[in-house]
Amino acid sequence: MEQHEPAEEETLESLRHRLRKFAGDRDWDQFHSPKNLSMALIAEAAEMVEHFQWLTEDQSSQLPLRKLAEVEEELADIFIYLIRLADKLDVDLIDAAARKIDLNEKKYPAGVVRGSAKKYTEY
Amino acid sequence: MEQHEPAEEETLESLRHRLRKFAGDRDWDQFHSPKNLSMALIAEAAEMVEHFQWLTEDQSSQLPLRKLAEVEEELADIFIYLIRLADKLDVDLIDAAARKIDLNEKKYPAGVVRGSAKKYTEY
Amino acid sequence: MEQHEPAEEETLESLRHRLRKFAGDRDWDQFHSPKNLSMALIAEAAEMVEHFQWLTEDQSSQLPLRKLAEVEEELADIFIYLIRLADKLDVDLIDAAARKIDLNEKKYPAGVVRGSAKKYTEY
Amino acid sequence: MEQHEPAEEETLESLRHRLRKFAGDRDWDQFHSPKNLSMALIAEAAEMVEHFQWLTEDQSSQLPLRKLAEVEEELADIFIYLIRLADKLDVDLIDAAARKIDLNEKKYPAGVVRGSAKKYTEY
Repeated sequence: MEQHEPAEEETLESLRHRLRKFAGDRDWDQFHSPKNLSMALIAEAAEMVEHFQWLTEDQSSQLPLRKLAEVEEELADIFIYLIRLADKLDVDLIDAAARKIDLNEKKYPAGVVRGSAKKYTEY
Repeated sequence: MEQHEPAEEETLESLRHRLRKFAGDRDWDQFHSPKNLSMALIAEAAEMVEHFQWLTEDQSSQLPLRKLAEVEEELADIFIYLIRLADKLDVDLIDAAARKIDLNEKKYPAGVVRGSAKKYTEY
Repeated sequence: MEQHEPAEEETLESLRHRLRKFAGDRDWDQFHSPKNLSMALIAEAAEMVEHFQWLTEDQSSQLPLRKLAEVEEELADIFIYLIRLADKLDVDLIDAAARKIDLNEKKYPAGVVRGSAKKYTEY
Repeated sequence: MEQHEPAEEETLESLRHRLRKFAGDRDWDQFHSPKNLSMALIAEAAEMVEHFQWLTEDQSSQLPLRKLAEVEEELADIFIYLIRLADKLDVDLIDAAARKIDLNEKKYPAGVVRGSAKKYTEY
């Protein structure tokens, strides 16, 4: 069985390597086409949605600890497939997100959209 | 208009702060209940799925550059909502994913599942 | 170009036949594996979710007419892929749903669960 | 406990009525805002996607009976929420789908798109 020394400081990069090794060690890489991984990711996203579907927005902000732990695990699952998918497509997640935020900052200037709740739904 | 000095080295942590400020500056925090963010995340996940739905698995591994750039932007959008959601729920994504990988390593011992493609679908 | 005489009374059955012919006439049946159709269906479901993600529950019950027309089209798209998928898997949707409702009626006896809003989230 | 006489011939319309009564009898209508129902629908769609995510397209067309029974139940769940959602929004599913198919027949003329597998992914 593989040994994993708890890294003192895991990073997105170290997780990417662990996940790549995890799939490789199990010969599961053959299943990890981007198409399949996209399905796995959305299935995990839906498990998270399921936790929130009958809650009010307020309730969703004040989850009991036990429920929060379950949601945390769903977020982890989404993140894991997202990292794996980005790795297969050779996408740098941090960089891609940073550039998207740059774009959004230009697209929605704070001075114009601030306080305009109504408009939000039109974006 | 807000200024964003391109960080020399963005991290998950710096993105989390930028996104928090982004929502705050626009008074959009009011819309960012975990319930709503879970919906936004799955909607972005579906935009990614849409890129792959009529492709074969092989085609999904060899995207033309233009298509790859579009998929990259979807991954960024998913990541952005995932970071935002984790921030609202006070979840440490790196830590949560690391613990989930620990669990998976124990749940699926490489020596047992390796080479057993068939079994994979049963997990 | 194919002619479609507006049926005086379309049914689930007549739609199933129209969709089968639609795919056949375009040689698109080759793309309609259940795997691919499941992706197309969830992508359409997400387009519907997107309409509701920033709305309150009350707002989602009182859509402006223009928005309602858009949501109606998403519902149609979901239905179309659902019919198509059921056709490919030789599943009778009406019958399957009727049997599931039978099950649910037994699983959640009205006398036990009525008025218990809290419990709902546990089902 | 409510009695349900097995209808000799269930229809979309009879299912709509049964589901409305089902929710009413349990006082669950309060949870069935279109927003919430859209979340429940996509969560069920994802359970279906999950069945297909590691299968090849061919495998997805030749499901073992046991797996097919599970997928059938997911299709039923999707259909149930779709009917419920359409009922809440006062949308006629059959009519909406028929009109969408009319549109698609015009948008993608068989004579133009036939045999053009490649183009399909661009639609």
